[in-house]
Amino acid sequence: MSPNKLITTTTPLQLTRLPEHPPTQKKPTHQPPWLPYPCSPSSSSSSSSSLHHATPSSPRLTLRTPSLNLRTRTKFSSIKAQSAPVLTQDDLKKLAADKAVEYVKSGMVLGLGTGSTAAFVVAKLGELLKTGELTDIVGVPTSKRTEEQARSLNIPLSILDDHPHIDLAIDGADEVDPLLNLVKGRGGALLREKMVEAASDEFVVVADETKLVDGLGGSKLAMPVEVVKFCWKYNLVRLQEMFKDEGVEAKLRVGENGKPYVTDNFNYIVDLYFENPIKDGYAAGKEISGLEGVVEHGLFLDMATAVIIAGKTGVEVKSK
Amino acid sequence: MSPNKLITTTTPLQLTRLPEHPPTQKKPTHQPPWLPYPCSPSSSSSSSSSLHHATPSSPRLTLRTPSLNLRTRTKFSSIKAQSAPVLTQDDLKKLAADKAVEYVKSGMVLGLGTGSTAAFVVAKLGELLKTGELTDIVGVPTSKRTEEQARSLNIPLSILDDHPHIDLAIDGADEVDPLLNLVKGRGGALLREKMVEAASDEFVVVADETKLVDGLGGSKLAMPVEVVKFCWKYNLVRLQEMFKDEGVEAKLRVGENGKPYVTDNFNYIVDLYFENPIKDGYAAGKEISGLEGVVEHGLFLDMATAVIIAGKTGVEVKSK
Repeated sequence: MSPNKLITTTTPLQLTRLPEHPPTQKKPTHQPPWLPYPCSPSSSSSSSSSLHHATPSSPRLTLRTPSLNLRTRTKFSSIKAQSAPVLTQDDLKKLAADKAVEYVKSGMVLGLGTGSTAAFVVAKLGELLKTGELTDIVGVPTSKRTEEQARSLNIPLSILDDHPHIDLAIDGADEVDPLLNLVKGRGGALLREKMVEAASDEFVVVADETKLVDGLGGSKLAMPVEVVKFCWKYNLVRLQEMFKDEGVEAKLRVGENGKPYVTDNFNYIVDLYFENPIKDGYAAGKEISGLEGVVEHGLFLDMATAVIIAGKTGVEVKSK
Repeated sequence: MSPNKLITTTTPLQLTRLPEHPPTQKKPTHQPPWLPYPCSPSSSSSSSSSLHHATPSSPRLTLRTPSLNLRTRTKFSSIKAQSAPVLTQDDLKKLAADKAVEYVKSGMVLGLGTGSTAAFVVAKLGELLKTGELTDIVGVPTSKRTEEQARSLNIPLSILDDHPHIDLAIDGADEVDPLLNLVKGRGGALLREKMVEAASDEFVVVADETKLVDGLGGSKLAMPVEVVKFCWKYNLVRLQEMFKDEGVEAKLRVGENGKPYVTDNFNYIVDLYFENPIKDGYAAGKEISGLEGVVEHGLFLDMATAVIIAGKTGVEVKSK
């Protein structure tokens, strides 16, 4: 990570300043079934023992674009109250999601991401719309799943055709490197995510600390490539050959039914598992895109404008 | 056209030397319905008045790869015999197709193109396999249509998955510029064509002279871009914007049923109609490919190794 390029701030979990507005106490009536716990927690004074490791400093978040100052800095205190004694990965995802939603202002066109962390973001948006804290939001979902969730929460929806300019997109990521380059798409929505997020003025990524890597592909989990069904095996072999120096294993993604996983665009996904991280993400992205039959790849380079990372010691924001 | 880079030879239609083998007289038993006249013409001594303009010189074809010398130079004489008094566009397509098939040798893996000219190539191959003049051919079709035609002619077929290395591909083109760069895909098979032809050692293009342009896009007919269905309009607008200097009109391709045309890969096609030719094909190709949601485009750059052009004065071969 180049300290000259990135600004990193950490918001500790012991944040004690009083909220500008009282935290919302009301439970959401539209609790979606896929959320492991209520998104608007009931107030509690208990604090986690794991919070004691947090540092006392609480610098103000510095964002690249002044217009994207946080809507309010009060939501975070309501998150603390809900923390279990040991923070689970879902707790961390929700911490990051709630932080990200603070970037949202009324009247914005929002790109709505896909995946477990993004689902927390969408749930929170639905809640704030319901209470009236946010108004005039239009969401542009990046998958059918997200569309369904947002619709169930009465979030007004649109598509890129009608809203080609998006103010802010919020989405999760599978990997975040020190320069805020990402691997995304393990949820299978990489193409729509990339379309929507490339159309956004600002792209805020939410992740828990397990997603941090030194180099892309470094998690040894999947880096997805969406390919047309026609001669997918031919492209799988070409991808395998392309990254032989990184010790890659290329596998066709298979669904729970044992059949090839099919994307929203009727394509297949070839997942790349790297033994060693990708040496040059930019060169790799260009080379993958150059293969005929490749529709999109999961390297999101120079796209994130801020990354919110929730760890056991607090919420860290890195911005470019 | 740079004379330093291209070799152009013209084979006149008055070619009078005796064939090394007599032309095939037998009519094919599997005449496909989409061919406007039998592919193995009956012999005739009549010659077209339009042929009188041809020059008497008959230089040997010079090919980039010595191994791709013509299989035989006798087939051409049988083409002349079939010429009607006035050569139609289909006559010219067939002239070029028959010439291209002379590049084929027994034992080759062949990329089989798509479209009206390519259909003549496939028909001729079927005929030569039937008579035993060619053996051990494996065809890799670039569309379902071509696959059906080849299957009906008993041409052994395979796919890139099983034959990732192709010796020779033959296909038509919608436009050919002086540097042998092409526009292809008006038939809708651009992605599969590009996949197969990029995997070929040699790529021979067959066209009639109406396909020659000074600059790509210069025919004022469609230059296709295959896009995912998701937010196709968004990409249409982006393409329209990208080529505003060329006075482009971007249109979603619509099928005969009035609904959007759907490719073999379940995508849409946005056709670009240029008022002025594209200034820099390489830059344009890169820029189009960079749009998320674009699956492939119809610019085939630096791919053709030879182009066979049938005109009213003869068959011209340009090779790189």
